[in-house]
Amino acid sequence: MALVVIGGTAAGLSAAARARRLDPRLEITVLEKGPVISLGACGLPYFVEGKIRESKDLAVFTPERFRKERNVDVRTGARVVSISHPRREVVLESGARVGYEKLVIATGARSDSLGIAGDRQPHVFRLQTLDDAERMRAFVRERKPRSAVVVGAGYIGVEAADALRRNGLQVTVLERSAHALLRADDAFTAAVREQLERHHVELRTGVSVTAIEPASVAGVACDMVVISAGFKPGAELAADAGIEIGRTGAIHTDDRMETNVRGVYAAGDCAEVTHLVSGRPTWIPLGTTANKCGRVAGANAAGARERFPGIVGTSIVGIFGMGFATTGFSAAEARAEGFTPAVARIEALSRPRYYQGTKTIVELVADKATRRLVGGCVIGEDGAAGRINVIAAALQARMKVDEFEQLDLAYSPPFAPVWDPVLIAAQQLMKEL
Amino acid sequence: MALVVIGGTAAGLSAAARARRLDPRLEITVLEKGPVISLGACGLPYFVEGKIRESKDLAVFTPERFRKERNVDVRTGARVVSISHPRREVVLESGARVGYEKLVIATGARSDSLGIAGDRQPHVFRLQTLDDAERMRAFVRERKPRSAVVVGAGYIGVEAADALRRNGLQVTVLERSAHALLRADDAFTAAVREQLERHHVELRTGVSVTAIEPASVAGVACDMVVISAGFKPGAELAADAGIEIGRTGAIHTDDRMETNVRGVYAAGDCAEVTHLVSGRPTWIPLGTTANKCGRVAGANAAGARERFPGIVGTSIVGIFGMGFATTGFSAAEARAEGFTPAVARIEALSRPRYYQGTKTIVELVADKATRRLVGGCVIGEDGAAGRINVIAAALQARMKVDEFEQLDLAYSPPFAPVWDPVLIAAQQLMKEL
Repeated sequence: MALVVIGGTAAGLSAAARARRLDPRLEITVLEKGPVISLGACGLPYFVEGKIRESKDLAVFTPERFRKERNVDVRTGARVVSISHPRREVVLESGARVGYEKLVIATGARSDSLGIAGDRQPHVFRLQTLDDAERMRAFVRERKPRSAVVVGAGYIGVEAADALRRNGLQVTVLERSAHALLRADDAFTAAVREQLERHHVELRTGVSVTAIEPASVAGVACDMVVISAGFKPGAELAADAGIEIGRTGAIHTDDRMETNVRGVYAAGDCAEVTHLVSGRPTWIPLGTTANKCGRVAGANAAGARERFPGIVGTSIVGIFGMGFATTGFSAAEARAEGFTPAVARIEALSRPRYYQGTKTIVELVADKATRRLVGGCVIGEDGAAGRINVIAAALQARMKVDEFEQLDLAYSPPFAPVWDPVLIAAQQLMKEL
Repeated sequence: MALVVIGGTAAGLSAAARARRLDPRLEITVLEKGPVISLGACGLPYFVEGKIRESKDLAVFTPERFRKERNVDVRTGARVVSISHPRREVVLESGARVGYEKLVIATGARSDSLGIAGDRQPHVFRLQTLDDAERMRAFVRERKPRSAVVVGAGYIGVEAADALRRNGLQVTVLERSAHALLRADDAFTAAVREQLERHHVELRTGVSVTAIEPASVAGVACDMVVISAGFKPGAELAADAGIEIGRTGAIHTDDRMETNVRGVYAAGDCAEVTHLVSGRPTWIPLGTTANKCGRVAGANAAGARERFPGIVGTSIVGIFGMGFATTGFSAAEARAEGFTPAVARIEALSRPRYYQGTKTIVELVADKATRRLVGGCVIGEDGAAGRINVIAAALQARMKVDEFEQLDLAYSPPFAPVWDPVLIAAQQLMKEL
């Protein structure tokens, strides 16, 4: 049996590795269009910053190592230009054809900058590939730009702003929507703005960038530009092959990660998944989801029967040492999904004051009709990841606020206060229901 | 209506405060036998260490402040010697009587050192009251002892050992059972021992202390002794009044925190609660539980109808900067509770290596028959509290490993690796089921 995987990053390699583990005799080929595999794109801003010194720390596997340790045929520089399912083969840019019996599509996302004029100038960067990051770092170190504009206040955009600011640049972030970090949440965006401004980074929302001038963007003077916006699912190959695309624009699959074409799976940033709070398909491209879906796609392609139930949309971003974490829906998003949201937002200490507790903001959102938690966010320098994960676990378990309020969470002065901030938020939320 | 609360610490004050909030006109009296109220006993080791400078940081409320802000009659030095329910009154040591219509018993736990000879010597300390802590701190500062024996390797015992070691003493911990931190778990105890030894504190298990000599305990020479063992529920008052005591030795209540005597509630370290994993009563005296039960007891005493479903037994202790966190049952405990445990224990990094990730140990225990998670522990310098809380939430939601493995947890290099250690443990556990 031959399994072909298109894409050699999180989802693709997870699929290949898992298939290999379940079936030692499967013939597995990974086709990666770029020069490296297993790139941890989430590390790119830290490479630009200088926190990650060597590019090899960004890619766990070389093709040779993956080939040797997993017995998988890994081909880099192998761009697939079409899938011919009737013939069970994919066609490479070189004209070569690779036959398959099972196929996993893990073609990722792409930044679509159509409509931004001047985006090919040498001082304009993206931050998706290792080459992008190496070019940007070299530019910062050699050309010593004094100012930068970042287009897009998503995760990577904000992290790039942080990285450039730490390198001494004057940084401005321009965001087309009214909100930062992809969350329709005014208070959360205000907190992001406040933290950026505390570190002299300006965030301007509601700014549509249509052109990049040689020394400015949208009237903001700058020596360099980072474009981190317009991400879309890389679903064209699949669409051209007649595979069903969902309403999110990403490839639609069932909970086995199988597309409408039997034997063809999709996983990672090119595929949509079920949002467990709404029950509807969603497209939230993140490495955690890519790894999980890839594992399930690989397992099923190798003949197992595994399920990927879905996600709740958990994320965290560090901005100058402060964690901005979210899961589920904001109140505005919950309303748009048909819930009747109740909201509580509290400030509390992360630990007792005598143990250097720092300010922690917790917001919880519940549905008034069912009393179920539907989302939350946590902002703080200390423990934000652990706290958002507790909320995420509660969302996944469809927990009501009544039950969440009674969670038996760990307490000891070096770690947390006797009433954890998430429980204080839950008590407050009970009053709103 | 008159509500009397016996005990002015976590459970008692939570009950009084909550009752006041629900009924502004209730007559509320808190009777506290000691000189202070709202003592955060969990902070006592940090006061001895010197991390907490002033004793006022250990007690949030003075009686005056609680009286003024909550309109509650708080009496200190008011030791209750009996409850006469037929007369609806409690009798104080002074002979005075206080009538009630509703009663909340929050008499805490006590350290029963019966059987240890020589425990009244001036170099022998306990660590339960503010006076205990002040005396111990003064002794350490003024007498400059060079060595200490701590009797009991429970939470407070281990924290006291840490505090004394940080003050330069040579410290030995003697524990009667085979295990540290109250968990029947050989690997966990080994990890505690290793961390203590790394900081030159010796842990000897299986050592029964029957006498304290003037300059040694069980053959270990020492200049001072801390007894932190033999804790029992303070249930005598209730038992003498004919209130039902459970098999754990603590006061039995229903899920409204009401005892078998209508109108009499119990909460905190004197009361047993339901263990949500086994469904059976348990006695795990902790401040978090005391606060939650106290709130529910107070609410119901004031006429509301609230439930306290139970606990899963979550705790964390810091030992020289390393968090030792547990929830639910160890494998041995699970077996004793009638489960058929499967166990996975993994080591992973708390964050990516390039972001200073440190070694984190996660153990998960599931029941083979139902695939339900029944316990876990997390050991690490970074994120142990957040990770144990995710497991605790999963226990409370009766989650199966299959679902836990798919949790959508936050990832970003400054906070966590793309596969969180708890998820790696879950993957491992899936193979054991």
